Amino acid sequence: MPHFTLYALTGHWGPNPIKVAAFLEQFGFDYHVKLLDMNSTDKETGVKGADYLEVCPNGRTPALIDHKNNDFIVWESGAILQYLANKYDTEGKYGGKTPEEKAIIDEWLFFQATGLSVPQGQLFYAKTSWKGKYDEDAPKNVIRRFSDELQRVLAVFEQQLKKQTEKHGGERAWLALDRITVADFTTLAWLGLLPNYGEPLEVDLAKFPYIAKYIERCEALPAVKAVRAQIKH
Amino acid sequence: MPHFTLYALTGHWGPNPIKVAAFLEQFGFDYHVKLLDMNSTDKETGVKGADYLEVCPNGRTPALIDHKNNDFIVWESGAILQYLANKYDTEGKYGGKTPEEKAIIDEWLFFQATGLSVPQGQLFYAKTSWKGKYDEDAPKNVIRRFSDELQRVLAVFEQQLKKQTEKHGGERAWLALDRITVADFTTLAWLGLLPNYGEPLEVDLAKFPYIAKYIERCEALPAVKAVRAQIKH
Repeated sequence: MPHFTLYALTGHWGPNPIKVAAFLEQFGFDYHVKLLDMNSTDKETGVKGADYLEVCPNGRTPALIDHKNNDFIVWESGAILQYLANKYDTEGKYGGKTPEEKAIIDEWLFFQATGLSVPQGQLFYAKTSWKGKYDEDAPKNVIRRFSDELQRVLAVFEQQLKKQTEKHGGERAWLALDRITVADFTTLAWLGLLPNYGEPLEVDLAKFPYIAKYIERCEALPAVKAVRAQIKH
Repeated sequence: MPHFTLYALTGHWGPNPIKVAAFLEQFGFDYHVKLLDMNSTDKETGVKGADYLEVCPNGRTPALIDHKNNDFIVWESGAILQYLANKYDTEGKYGGKTPEEKAIIDEWLFFQATGLSVPQGQLFYAKTSWKGKYDEDAPKNVIRRFSDELQRVLAVFEQQLKKQTEKHGGERAWLALDRITVADFTTLAWLGLLPNYGEPLEVDLAKFPYIAKYIERCEALPAVKAVRAQIKH
């Protein structure tokens, strides 16, 4: 029995399960990935099926089961990262050593979850899935609304990464602190989509050089490579 | 000098600053509210003005300054609640006493921030502000998309509050644990909008009896009353 079971989506896994998988790899934890089918209500394999709704009442991935802690269940990627940090990173290397470090990490953790994922996710849906769902092209102002907001939010990340680079140097320019933290694991999974999905997302990374460098550094992490390798097969 | 400065929006404050204000009231902390003008770039009074962007690079409220901790600044309402809990609630009454309690609190904290506020906020915008911004009625499928999702998410809250009521009794049926936690402070500010904005949000609280009771109990809290009283004047 592996230490953890992680739930993700069949095929691409989804950015939120990837956050957790990369963090588990960083720790060197042993985990099993259980894949669920998107939009399916199949009892055993559906993300909206009865079995998974017992694990996660929201019917979304990821969720994590900790088999070495009485099969403790936690869902919501932000909560999972915090649980792993609180439970297994007792020195606060990734989760923060003081309330002040924790606060800076949490700022960027929540900003990714609420600020970045909304326009990026909604814009991607509008460009790729709206027509299949609603039998019309996505209205132009829907695209405008979420594209404008995505550009604004990316500029906030760009500015922060520039600041961090000037303060700590390029190799230690992580999002929250001068070392990699849960704020980076939550963010790399979403920003990491930009090189492949720049076109539907209307994002030209040449305009965000600090983000582009950050993505390169994140993708070069052994933990991230290990996750991407599993998804490709 | 009060212990804290809290930034909120002129007029209604906004649900996210209200989360923080209610939690500060619960602790009995002394705080000053600095109001900023929405959409304004005025240097001193604008939420997108130069002065406030120094405090919060995202140009959104709330942000909090802790004057008894070297004017330490924290922004993102979820991060602020966690900071207050980590720094001042050292026994974990509101933030959780164990990694497992913290995980359950975090699940609902993140679910509010990412699950509830997106459809509720987007639907409210579509119904009340879309026309002013884009010079057209909000497209019907925008309304359908966020209304469907809001109903789905509210059903998840309803089911959880039902479970908590059956497990702990009506008076201790808080969202995450059998006592009030930061998960409730984050949620009460958003669910608390439903009685006044049920019509634009297309939410009939008669269909969500556990949520309706929960809102009543939250609004009856002295901490919440103290906040609402300040906003009304």
